Amino acid sequence: MGRWEPNARGRLERAAIELFEERGFDQTTAAEIAARAGLTERTFFRHFADKREVLFGGVLQLQERFVAAVAGAPAARGPIEAVADGLREIAAMLGDNREFATVRQSIIAANPELQERELIKLATLAGAVGEALRGRGVPDPAASLSAEAGIAAFKVGFARWVEPANSRGLGELIAESLDQLRLVTAGGS
Amino acid sequence: MGRWEPNARGRLERAAIELFEERGFDQTTAAEIAARAGLTERTFFRHFADKREVLFGGVLQLQERFVAAVAGAPAARGPIEAVADGLREIAAMLGDNREFATVRQSIIAANPELQERELIKLATLAGAVGEALRGRGVPDPAASLSAEAGIAAFKVGFARWVEPANSRGLGELIAESLDQLRLVTAGGS
Repeated sequence: MGRWEPNARGRLERAAIELFEERGFDQTTAAEIAARAGLTERTFFRHFADKREVLFGGVLQLQERFVAAVAGAPAARGPIEAVADGLREIAAMLGDNREFATVRQSIIAANPELQERELIKLATLAGAVGEALRGRGVPDPAASLSAEAGIAAFKVGFARWVEPANSRGLGELIAESLDQLRLVTAGGS
Repeated sequence: MGRWEPNARGRLERAAIELFEERGFDQTTAAEIAARAGLTERTFFRHFADKREVLFGGVLQLQERFVAAVAGAPAARGPIEAVADGLREIAAMLGDNREFATVRQSIIAANPELQERELIKLATLAGAVGEALRGRGVPDPAASLSAEAGIAAFKVGFARWVEPANSRGLGELIAESLDQLRLVTAGGS
């Protein structure tokens, strides 16, 4: 109790994902997640406000890194290039853990309340990226549209990445989606 | 009671928007909306499941018309052209009622629960447009990306339309947003 547990957060995440897969999200409690991880419920609540936060706790960090990459891109880079830098950054952050991402995706897809939360997080992310672009001096509507384009490429690239048959990397699929967004908006397909 | 009321739906919408502006959304009841419209509460509930439906009741019709326009576009039109046809259709449907749209937008912006609902409706719309494109033989990810591009252009064009200082038309602003999305994804700004 209260003592430092090595990698408690990672152990809790793995335990939660196992239980969500075995029993479903609704049928899993925080106490069960802690027990599976060999930790106390108190330790669980030091790391996560509730079991939903196991799924969404990483999103704020992701947003911070996306925004930092956009804000920190060299001044010569145009808005969509700065967004592409941000996308590369978050692909590197998420790309090593496809198993977690896949299970997370399937849990969210099965639960309308979690879907709402995911949509809100993505809309907030788009707003934050647009704000970072305006901070670079990009006027609206180019800032908003570049941010929306980035989120669209992220969503579509991510969905392809977690498809069962996929063996390609997240960064590659997001970059390809951004290229294809350019092609489709130019009138090609 | 129970008798047909001429344009009851339109009268209820106008009364609701007036009251939402005067008192706020949370402080307005269905009974008050009906009274302001000179109609009974029973008539209100023949037209709307609840007061939120005054704000969202039109979205399903909008989706149906968007999807019908995409599905019905001439075969020679590429995916983004079919999406542009759908956007023109819904701009024509919404474009005459900027006052309703403006008040609706400000109510939603002030209420997180309504924002969630709006995000879900837009995500559902994107899914339905993507499905209509796949029905035209457009493969993924081009179908999903064209749909996301259309929704992004709609969101940004709509937001510009309801800005207080704006005097331009909805259709023009959405079309311009789609053009600018093409420019930003091509690397311009």
